[in-house]
Amino acid sequence: MDYNKRSSVSTVPNAAPIRVGFVGLNAAKGWAIKTHYPAILQLSSQFQITALYSPKIETSIATIQRLKLSNATAFPTLESFASSSTIDMIVIAIQVASHYEVVMPLLEFSKNNPNLKYLFVEWALACSLDQAESIYKAAAERGVQTIISLQGRKSPYILRAKELISQGYIGDINSIEIAGNGGWYGYERPVKSPKYIYEIGNGVDLVTTTFGHTIDILQYMTSSYFSRINAMVFNNIPEQELIDERGNRLGQRVPKTVPDHLLFQGTLLNGNVPVSCSFKGGKPTKKFTKNLVIDIHGTKGDLKLEGDAGFAEISNLVLYYSGTRANDFPLANGQQAPLDPGYDAGKEIMEVYHLRNYNAIVGNIHRLYQSISDFHFNTKKIPELPSQFVMQGFDFEGFPTLMDALILHRLIESVYKSNMMGSTLNVSNISHYSL
Amino acid sequence: MDYNKRSSVSTVPNAAPIRVGFVGLNAAKGWAIKTHYPAILQLSSQFQITALYSPKIETSIATIQRLKLSNATAFPTLESFASSSTIDMIVIAIQVASHYEVVMPLLEFSKNNPNLKYLFVEWALACSLDQAESIYKAAAERGVQTIISLQGRKSPYILRAKELISQGYIGDINSIEIAGNGGWYGYERPVKSPKYIYEIGNGVDLVTTTFGHTIDILQYMTSSYFSRINAMVFNNIPEQELIDERGNRLGQRVPKTVPDHLLFQGTLLNGNVPVSCSFKGGKPTKKFTKNLVIDIHGTKGDLKLEGDAGFAEISNLVLYYSGTRANDFPLANGQQAPLDPGYDAGKEIMEVYHLRNYNAIVGNIHRLYQSISDFHFNTKKIPELPSQFVMQGFDFEGFPTLMDALILHRLIESVYKSNMMGSTLNVSNISHYSL
Repeated sequence: MDYNKRSSVSTVPNAAPIRVGFVGLNAAKGWAIKTHYPAILQLSSQFQITALYSPKIETSIATIQRLKLSNATAFPTLESFASSSTIDMIVIAIQVASHYEVVMPLLEFSKNNPNLKYLFVEWALACSLDQAESIYKAAAERGVQTIISLQGRKSPYILRAKELISQGYIGDINSIEIAGNGGWYGYERPVKSPKYIYEIGNGVDLVTTTFGHTIDILQYMTSSYFSRINAMVFNNIPEQELIDERGNRLGQRVPKTVPDHLLFQGTLLNGNVPVSCSFKGGKPTKKFTKNLVIDIHGTKGDLKLEGDAGFAEISNLVLYYSGTRANDFPLANGQQAPLDPGYDAGKEIMEVYHLRNYNAIVGNIHRLYQSISDFHFNTKKIPELPSQFVMQGFDFEGFPTLMDALILHRLIESVYKSNMMGSTLNVSNISHYSL
Repeated sequence: MDYNKRSSVSTVPNAAPIRVGFVGLNAAKGWAIKTHYPAILQLSSQFQITALYSPKIETSIATIQRLKLSNATAFPTLESFASSSTIDMIVIAIQVASHYEVVMPLLEFSKNNPNLKYLFVEWALACSLDQAESIYKAAAERGVQTIISLQGRKSPYILRAKELISQGYIGDINSIEIAGNGGWYGYERPVKSPKYIYEIGNGVDLVTTTFGHTIDILQYMTSSYFSRINAMVFNNIPEQELIDERGNRLGQRVPKTVPDHLLFQGTLLNGNVPVSCSFKGGKPTKKFTKNLVIDIHGTKGDLKLEGDAGFAEISNLVLYYSGTRANDFPLANGQQAPLDPGYDAGKEIMEVYHLRNYNAIVGNIHRLYQSISDFHFNTKKIPELPSQFVMQGFDFEGFPTLMDALILHRLIESVYKSNMMGSTLNVSNISHYSL
C-alpha cells in the first residue's frame, strides 16, 4: 500500500509554511470551518492562515478572534485581499453560485501579488461549463498552480482500490455497477436546510455533486475516462415536505427544481468496459443495500466499495477485494513477480480494508492539503511532477487541478445533453487538454 | 399470500384430462424432459401425453417406451401429428431457431384437428420480431388459446413480490436496480456445450433469454411497461476458451457472436420510475454480490430479490421485504384496512421469503401447467377470464400468451435498435395489442 503512506516528512521545520488566504472561512458556520480548518490545523508546520476575506469584514475579524489566528489579517475588499503579498495560496470555499463572480476579479487583482502560487477552489468550480472554462482560462493565464477539491481521489479506500486495479489484482476490468443514494433531494426537506441546494443552477445537485464526485473517483480508480454515455435525469419529486429537527412534518410543501434521480450508463475508453449507474435522492434505507455501492468486476477478481452515505468523497467506506492468486501478477514497475517455489497459485485471496475511526469528511481534505504540501516542499522527491502541472489525470501523486475539474464538467454537461437530446453520446474527446 | 395458493382442486376426477402432443420431448436429452415432463407428471389427472412428433420417429418411439407413455402415439410427420384429433394441446419445446419453420405449417395442418385448443410455445417464441409476429398472427387466425413459457411470472417469489407491491406495502415505487450475471457468454465454454447458443440469431442469448425473462418479470411485478429505454449491447469477448468437464482449459479458442453484456436503463410508464439494469456474462462470482439482484425501492419500503444464478425464471430466489407499518395500507379488494385500536402504526416490519427446497427449474413450469389446468377446468371459478383471452398482461390469474411474448419481443428489438442508433427510444406504444 505504497500510495497510502503519509507524507515522508510530516513536519517541515526549516522551510517557511505556505501562507493561506481564505475566501469563505467563517468560525460560525459553513464547510470550510468543518473541513479545511481542521485539515490545516493538523499541518501547522506546512500551512499558516494569513488572510481572510468576506464581504462583511466583521465576519473575518470574528473568525480571527475565535480561532486565535494570530498571523491573519482581515481584508476589507477583494482587491486588497487578492493583491496582498502575504498570501501564497488562496482557498475559495464559498457557495459555488458565487465562485465565478469572486474568482474572476480575484485572479485579475492577484497580478499585484508576486507570491501567489496556488489557487484552491471547491468543487464544483462553477455553475456551468462556460463559467468553468472562463475560470480555468483566467487561472492558466495568471499562471497559478490550481487545485480542485475532488478530494475523493485522496480517500485511502479509493487509493487502495486504484492500487489493486493498477497492479493487476483483479485482472482486466469487465463490468462496473454503481448505486448511490443521496440523502438530500428526497420527499422531505429539513426546514433549516438552505434553499439554494434545492434550486437548479447553483452548482450543487445530484448530478454535479453526487454523481460528479463519484464518477470522478471511478475514472480515477480505473484510470479511464468514458467513450460513450447515455443519461436520463429525473425530477419526480417537484415538491418537498418541510420537516423540523425531529423529523416531524410541518404540513408545508416547497418547490424543488434539482433532479432527484440520475440514470447513467456508458463504456470506459479503456477496455470498452460497461458501466451502469443509478443515483437517487430520498432518505437512506440501509436495509438491504448500503447507500453507496460500487462493484468493479475483473477477469481475476472483484472489488466492492460500500458506504453508509451516497457521497463517496466524504464517506468512510469499506473496501472488499476478492481474487484468485496467480503467478502472473505484474508488479507496480511493470516487471513480473519472482516465482516463489512455495507459491500457492490459484488460491483465492480476500482483503477487507476499513479504518474504523476514519473521519472522511476532514480526512480526505486533509490528505489533499498533505499532497499540496508534498508537492510544494517536494518532500517525496517526486521526479515526475514539474514545478507546475496542468492536471493530475490518473497519477497517484499530485492533486486534481482545474483541468481535471473542467474535464468532469464536460462529462456533466454531456449528461444533461444526453438526457435532453435522448441520445447516446460519444465523449471520447472531452478528456483532451484543449478548451 | 392469496395468489401463491395451489389450485383449489388439485385433482379433477370427473373430467377428461387435457391431451398433450409434444414436439421436442426426448427421454434422452433436452429441456422438455427436465421440466415439462416432471411438471406434467405431478398433474397426471389434468394432463395426459397422447402424441409425440420428432423428425426421426425412432426418437419418439424410444421416448414412449422409456417413459412408459401408454396413451401416446408416435407420429411420422408433422402433418399427421397436427391433424390428429387426439390432441387438445400442442407443446413446442425445440430449439427456438426451428420454431418458425415448425409452428407455421403445424398451425396450418392443425385445421384438421377440431379438438385443438391450446398452443404452448417455449420462449423466445421466435428468432426475430418478424417471425414472432407471423406466428402470433397465424395462431390468432387458427383461434387457439396460446401460452408462452415466460414462467418467471409463476415463480412464488415473483408473485409474492407482485402481491406486496400491488397491495401498497412499499408505497409508490421510485427506483429499481437490477444486476444479472449469466453463466454462459463468458471467457470459457464447456466443450460439450451446443454451438448454437453462442451464435447470434438463434433466439437464445443474453438479451433475448436472460434480459427477456428478467425484464418480463419486472414488468409483471410492477404492473408496468416501459416508456423510454436506452441500451448498449457488448460483445467484448469475441472468442472463448474451450474447457473440459473439470474446467481445464483445452488450449483452443472458438468464436462467439452473441453479446456478453447489456446495459439497459429506462423509465416505467407507471410513475416514471427510473430502472437501471446491467446484465453480464462470465463465471459466477457470488463473493460480494449474488448473480441476480433486483432492488425495488418505494416510498414506504423496499423489496430485494436475490438468486445464485442470473436467470430469474429458473432460479430459486430469496425475497426480502422491509417497510414501515402504516394504517393506510389498502387491502387487495381496494378497500381500507379496518383500523385496529392496538395497531402499531409506524413500526418497521420485515419479511424474508424463501422455500429452501423449491426446484425453480421444474417448479415454475409446473405452476404454469397448473394455471392452464385451472383455466381449462375453471377450478378457481375465475369470472374475469373469458373462455379464450388475448393476453395475460399484469393479471395474477391466467398465464402469459403469445401476445405477451410479442410485446416482449418488441422491447428486445428496441434494445438492439437503441444500441445501434445510439438513441433513447420512446417505447410507450409497444404494449398495444395491434400488430
